[in-house]
Amino acid sequence: MRKFIFILFFIPFGVKAQQDSVQIASIFEHILSAGECHDDLRVLCKDIGARLSGSPAADKAILWGFETLKSLNPDTVFLQDIEVPHWTRGNVERAVLNGKAGTKQLHICALGGAVGTKGTIEAEVIMVKEFSELEALGRDQVEGKIVFYNRALNPVLINTGAAYGGAYDQRSSGAIEAAKYGAVGTLVRSLTHALDTLPHTGAMNYEEGIDSIPAAAISTVDANYLSEQLKLDPKLKIALELSCERHPDRVQANVIAEIRGSEFPEEYILVGGHLDSWDIGEGAHDDGAGIVQSIEVLRTYMALGIKPKHSLRIVLFINEENGNRGGIGYAETVKENNEEHIAALESDSGGFSPRGFNMEGSDEQAVKVRSWAELFEPYNIHLFRRGWSGVDIRPLKNDRILLMGLVPDNQRYFDYHHSKNDVFESVHKRELELGAAAMTSLIYLLDQYAP
Amino acid sequence: MRKFIFILFFIPFGVKAQQDSVQIASIFEHILSAGECHDDLRVLCKDIGARLSGSPAADKAILWGFETLKSLNPDTVFLQDIEVPHWTRGNVERAVLNGKAGTKQLHICALGGAVGTKGTIEAEVIMVKEFSELEALGRDQVEGKIVFYNRALNPVLINTGAAYGGAYDQRSSGAIEAAKYGAVGTLVRSLTHALDTLPHTGAMNYEEGIDSIPAAAISTVDANYLSEQLKLDPKLKIALELSCERHPDRVQANVIAEIRGSEFPEEYILVGGHLDSWDIGEGAHDDGAGIVQSIEVLRTYMALGIKPKHSLRIVLFINEENGNRGGIGYAETVKENNEEHIAALESDSGGFSPRGFNMEGSDEQAVKVRSWAELFEPYNIHLFRRGWSGVDIRPLKNDRILLMGLVPDNQRYFDYHHSKNDVFESVHKRELELGAAAMTSLIYLLDQYAP
Repeated sequence: MRKFIFILFFIPFGVKAQQDSVQIASIFEHILSAGECHDDLRVLCKDIGARLSGSPAADKAILWGFETLKSLNPDTVFLQDIEVPHWTRGNVERAVLNGKAGTKQLHICALGGAVGTKGTIEAEVIMVKEFSELEALGRDQVEGKIVFYNRALNPVLINTGAAYGGAYDQRSSGAIEAAKYGAVGTLVRSLTHALDTLPHTGAMNYEEGIDSIPAAAISTVDANYLSEQLKLDPKLKIALELSCERHPDRVQANVIAEIRGSEFPEEYILVGGHLDSWDIGEGAHDDGAGIVQSIEVLRTYMALGIKPKHSLRIVLFINEENGNRGGIGYAETVKENNEEHIAALESDSGGFSPRGFNMEGSDEQAVKVRSWAELFEPYNIHLFRRGWSGVDIRPLKNDRILLMGLVPDNQRYFDYHHSKNDVFESVHKRELELGAAAMTSLIYLLDQYAP
Repeated sequence: MRKFIFILFFIPFGVKAQQDSVQIASIFEHILSAGECHDDLRVLCKDIGARLSGSPAADKAILWGFETLKSLNPDTVFLQDIEVPHWTRGNVERAVLNGKAGTKQLHICALGGAVGTKGTIEAEVIMVKEFSELEALGRDQVEGKIVFYNRALNPVLINTGAAYGGAYDQRSSGAIEAAKYGAVGTLVRSLTHALDTLPHTGAMNYEEGIDSIPAAAISTVDANYLSEQLKLDPKLKIALELSCERHPDRVQANVIAEIRGSEFPEEYILVGGHLDSWDIGEGAHDDGAGIVQSIEVLRTYMALGIKPKHSLRIVLFINEENGNRGGIGYAETVKENNEEHIAALESDSGGFSPRGFNMEGSDEQAVKVRSWAELFEPYNIHLFRRGWSGVDIRPLKNDRILLMGLVPDNQRYFDYHHSKNDVFESVHKRELELGAAAMTSLIYLLDQYAP
């Protein structure tokens, strides 16, 4: 098969390129004039809303995803059961600063997975920007205090994802590192470039053998304020109250639709995003966009009568945000059933204007994908680079599969990410549609040339 | 001199490219970490606001521009007097639909420059999408009616500017064409892809010898509604009242700052945008963004101690929106004074993520500019294409000058354009800064290599 494909690829490029170019134009035209992904997103955001794994809203989203895919008449739609964590925020999230300047309520929210405070914790605050500062301070100066992590995102990095990556450890491992020195809680500067009063939640970890201490995000405006206050009044205290709780796991599901391939039905190409979201906002960019774009790929295939050669799977993954059990579970089943996946594409970087694609695969695969760059030029899609594909599809990685991730313009992404502002209104209809059209076009080329 | 520059350009590219790359990195770093253009935009939008040519607010903006540029200590800042049109909207803009289904107030606003209704015009409505339909209908069916132009922007065009261009004649010449057949007024579907209740104003023309009839924009939602109602009730009437007025011209000014060139002081490179805006909204994207980005170019030159070889002019043009007298007047003075302009860059397409630049110039110039593409790659700036530079700088066109226009991502631009939603909050700080950094970098290269 590989050889056959290889030969196909070298059919005089002129004719094939012409056909591909016409097919891609018809995909963009169809989605920009008759696409329904923006309407789908409205339903997912407004009728269902926030849908954290384990929540009743996530059950509703799974049902919606199943029915929406089913209505498009692919060959199959099925659910894959996945056991997911269940955590609830509860009704109380409060941090009150008490100091020389009086008291002030700060804008905070619990990090996802954090333990609650079981009443109120009132403690002094020690600010650090790096874990190494904790070591330098030592248990003497940390014990009994709330550790306030205040390393901002680096504004100089063009890729906001890289800036996020450079500050992420404070949220993911901050509670573990602080607990090692006897801290009683943590406040983490929200992982965003925006200067506003929105706290941004997100996943955090605990480690066996180290105390699990409460952890919350604090808005960037409040982080700056707290930092200033600490200079004036190093003995100020914060009273922290969080009612969040961990519960037993629940069974939810990945939602999977499939069109059987006409030539290579035993080889799969996957496109997907994640159906779960954080429990604040509406999960519009993260990852409602990726979900409705993936559904739009199927809708466009059906509307234009494109018959894939390889089997095409649309996967709405569960539990990307706090466990990745949907992605891991899917990959396990693929392995057990020996379902050869030749390529997978994820959209989980927001519904903004598409700039290109990240690739994880062999050098040969990268070269082939780059040879399609010209086909994307009319749509101002220009990035075909090595880089992270996606959390959900990453467990599929092996030495054959080509993993790809949609790269939208990401300057605004972390303004919304994991906050209550990640709502339907923040997603632009045409930008969302251009992303869906770019994804459909890429899936079409992956199916044609199986790089 | 030309020859000298030509030789410079061919110095082993490795070393020069390395230096350029370092300089450009320092420009981006400076603006992304210490840029002030976003703060400037807040002042221009919130303290001054809408600033149509001829208005007191435009006087205020000219003063603000002068003082802001002066505070950066270039060699000179001066005003160039320009006589501008003066038109006011007045307090009354009303269109009430009266038909079988009852009455309904429509969302409209007068087009810029339109004559008022002098009382109320009540008339039947005839809908067309093309001027040729007017001819087919003939005077019989048009006379005494309000012509409703309802051609939507083409959603399939990737470049929203092209879609705007494809619908623009309805606004610019619609009143002339309708008056030829005896129409008493026009309503023009707002030039936007967005489906909402915002009317979008903009310039319109009259022709000597043809009646000047009132003309207003109608929101896209109302245009769709009116179109549906006309199917049910072709005899419905609209009562239109507009209090707008034309007044005698006033003298306002272009604001010009200059750094004298160290090697070629008699050769100029210009960067600019337009200071005037429409009289609704705050002129944030159109063209507050271009103004504060142009100012940021100067600020960055001063902050980093970059000494231009050619004289650098920052020009805040007046009256782009309804007359282009600032651009025309500037070019006339340049010609009179024999000031050789080798290049000009305009930013007037919104403050969104920069995608690249349009070019108007010789093939040789285009080739040279494209040879810099690699320097812009780290910043995801990829478009270096033939295309429209900018309204303000276009009058400078001759067979030597290279005219360029910043091309930002434009999917959202016409959602805001000429409407009350074009406000400070719609401009993203980092996107604005990336545009300013791209412009500063381009000006740097234009000065180094004078293509």
